[in-house]
Amino acid sequence: MSRVYNFAPGPAALPLPALERAAKELVEFGGAGMSVMEMSHRSKMYLEIFDRVKSRFNQLMGVPDGYTTLLLQGGATQQFAAVPLNLLGEGDSAAYVDSGNFAHGAISEAKKYGAVVIAGDGSADKYTYIPNVDASGLAGCKYLHITTNNTVYGTRWPALPSKESVPESIPLVADMSSNILSETYDVSQFGVIYAGAQKNIGPAGLTVVIVRNDLLGSARKSCPKVMNWKLQADNDSMLNTPPCYAIYMAGLCLDWLDEQGGVKGIESVNVEKARLLYEAIDESRLFGNPVKPVDRSRMNVVFTTGSADKDDAFCKSAAKAGLVNLKGHRVVGGMRASIYNAMPIEGVKSLIEFMRRFEKDNP
Amino acid sequence: MSRVYNFAPGPAALPLPALERAAKELVEFGGAGMSVMEMSHRSKMYLEIFDRVKSRFNQLMGVPDGYTTLLLQGGATQQFAAVPLNLLGEGDSAAYVDSGNFAHGAISEAKKYGAVVIAGDGSADKYTYIPNVDASGLAGCKYLHITTNNTVYGTRWPALPSKESVPESIPLVADMSSNILSETYDVSQFGVIYAGAQKNIGPAGLTVVIVRNDLLGSARKSCPKVMNWKLQADNDSMLNTPPCYAIYMAGLCLDWLDEQGGVKGIESVNVEKARLLYEAIDESRLFGNPVKPVDRSRMNVVFTTGSADKDDAFCKSAAKAGLVNLKGHRVVGGMRASIYNAMPIEGVKSLIEFMRRFEKDNP
Repeated sequence: MSRVYNFAPGPAALPLPALERAAKELVEFGGAGMSVMEMSHRSKMYLEIFDRVKSRFNQLMGVPDGYTTLLLQGGATQQFAAVPLNLLGEGDSAAYVDSGNFAHGAISEAKKYGAVVIAGDGSADKYTYIPNVDASGLAGCKYLHITTNNTVYGTRWPALPSKESVPESIPLVADMSSNILSETYDVSQFGVIYAGAQKNIGPAGLTVVIVRNDLLGSARKSCPKVMNWKLQADNDSMLNTPPCYAIYMAGLCLDWLDEQGGVKGIESVNVEKARLLYEAIDESRLFGNPVKPVDRSRMNVVFTTGSADKDDAFCKSAAKAGLVNLKGHRVVGGMRASIYNAMPIEGVKSLIEFMRRFEKDNP
Repeated sequence: MSRVYNFAPGPAALPLPALERAAKELVEFGGAGMSVMEMSHRSKMYLEIFDRVKSRFNQLMGVPDGYTTLLLQGGATQQFAAVPLNLLGEGDSAAYVDSGNFAHGAISEAKKYGAVVIAGDGSADKYTYIPNVDASGLAGCKYLHITTNNTVYGTRWPALPSKESVPESIPLVADMSSNILSETYDVSQFGVIYAGAQKNIGPAGLTVVIVRNDLLGSARKSCPKVMNWKLQADNDSMLNTPPCYAIYMAGLCLDWLDEQGGVKGIESVNVEKARLLYEAIDESRLFGNPVKPVDRSRMNVVFTTGSADKDDAFCKSAAKAGLVNLKGHRVVGGMRASIYNAMPIEGVKSLIEFMRRFEKDNP
């Protein structure tokens, strides 16, 4: 096997030991006489797997008492609708910060269900920074929604909105899809956290939602029942059949993360990976990164030569060298190296070496 | 490895060759240098897998021109809401046949979004038969919803509602979760077919929806965008990240089905499996099946000794003999043998042998 360094933004690289273990026990799990994929979700053996994955996630994430963790289907995009359907009554309003592509998607979805106050807007400057939160219109809003890391534009909130700008009565709701479990967060600062699994948790097809318990139970009547957090909480995420194998697979990835020293352990590696790559970009005469330094993402590093042709040539020759999926998102162009937890530091170093060689050959 | 015969109602047994192939290529697919789980859903290599699975499904199912096949998340339970959200305008009504547990679930969900006409009700007689369709209230209904096989009660529509009872202008919408691809259906008789994958298609976490194209585009504004069939059709099921690995895995299972002679080939095996098992039950003095013979399911065979204690003893000793997950659904009790496509006829024969031995030992 020749394994490539896969810089895809999600679905993304998974830890090799997790894949190897999954391969070994795919046909038969333990002494079960069947695959995990064949287990009834109500069976004792599957419930043991499920409970273990949920506990591991809660431990790694530091989910405190008073919160409920749900393992669901549908992706973060489904939660774009679920958030207002669970939190907004008819005529209610919510505040959103428009910090990028997916934040924008969350906003257009929320507008179907209530009034949206834009509490920060980075669109004018092509989302190259995290906008400040404008507290003026927040009074009466049911929640404030942010996107902690912006996959497409390569930005990250360096700190959560301050207590001064956001009244404590307004819960913070975060789409954490692209940086969950990559750095420590204090879950008690949030009302709701949600994330698609396919970046830092496991394979696609699983979505994690962490809800503060006082925010359960206010879904509007028209909320589809699979999207109703309270109903899912009452049924331990098994109102209907969960994505059993994706959950099992996430468990293997989380076990690996635990072996890396948990979130604290991986965070220091992630900080170093990002530092090395931004340093290489900043020192280069060919490559540039447009993001305000303090707001740079540790997970998605965007860069460009400024020439679409050269960017294209870079991606193609990188792929030949085993550095794949470096093409930037279509709305931005250029390159993007997604360096989630499972990307080893060696992969980042290889990329940097390749960038230097490319620059030398293409002065 | 000692493989059990797994009679679970879903997630359920999968074809062993599909599992074995998945295990082999789990860590690296082809020469990709990565797992299928790590592939970007926008990458050429994943799109090739995706297109192949969709074509294979359409070929096996005989999906004609003029229909769109969607590969989605959320389960059939999510479609319980998606169906009315896509087909009913404000104030519209729909007709449903209440033929069992999941039909009932579909009805309560639909009531959130419109008026429901009950066009048939089997609840009075504990859902032991398929009710006739009462055409009297159908005028003006936007669709008629049926559940072609009832997993919990072990019944099956022996024929679709007749043209005489249902006007052609009312599209037939079918939850086909528990018998899709187990017998031939003429897709052109339906407006919409949907099915959770975890019985006859592949692992849990994937839902297939087949929609007649003229029924796309009428979703109400409040429909969450991931549930909007038209938006998903326009994006070839990739409005957001699909359940990539579940789709790949379904492909391996469908390839296996194709090798069995497709749906026609497996149907004759399924007919024989069901015939053998019902014959054994009918000949027994210990076991009984309450379902009206013509409406008996070929997929979910329910039976009971009439004594909860004896049923319990049966399930326990069967499990020890490698015949697992025979316990009936909690609302019915007794036993249920789910004998989907992947259950070999040898499994059914082993079960029958065990039943005879148990009857002899427990006269």
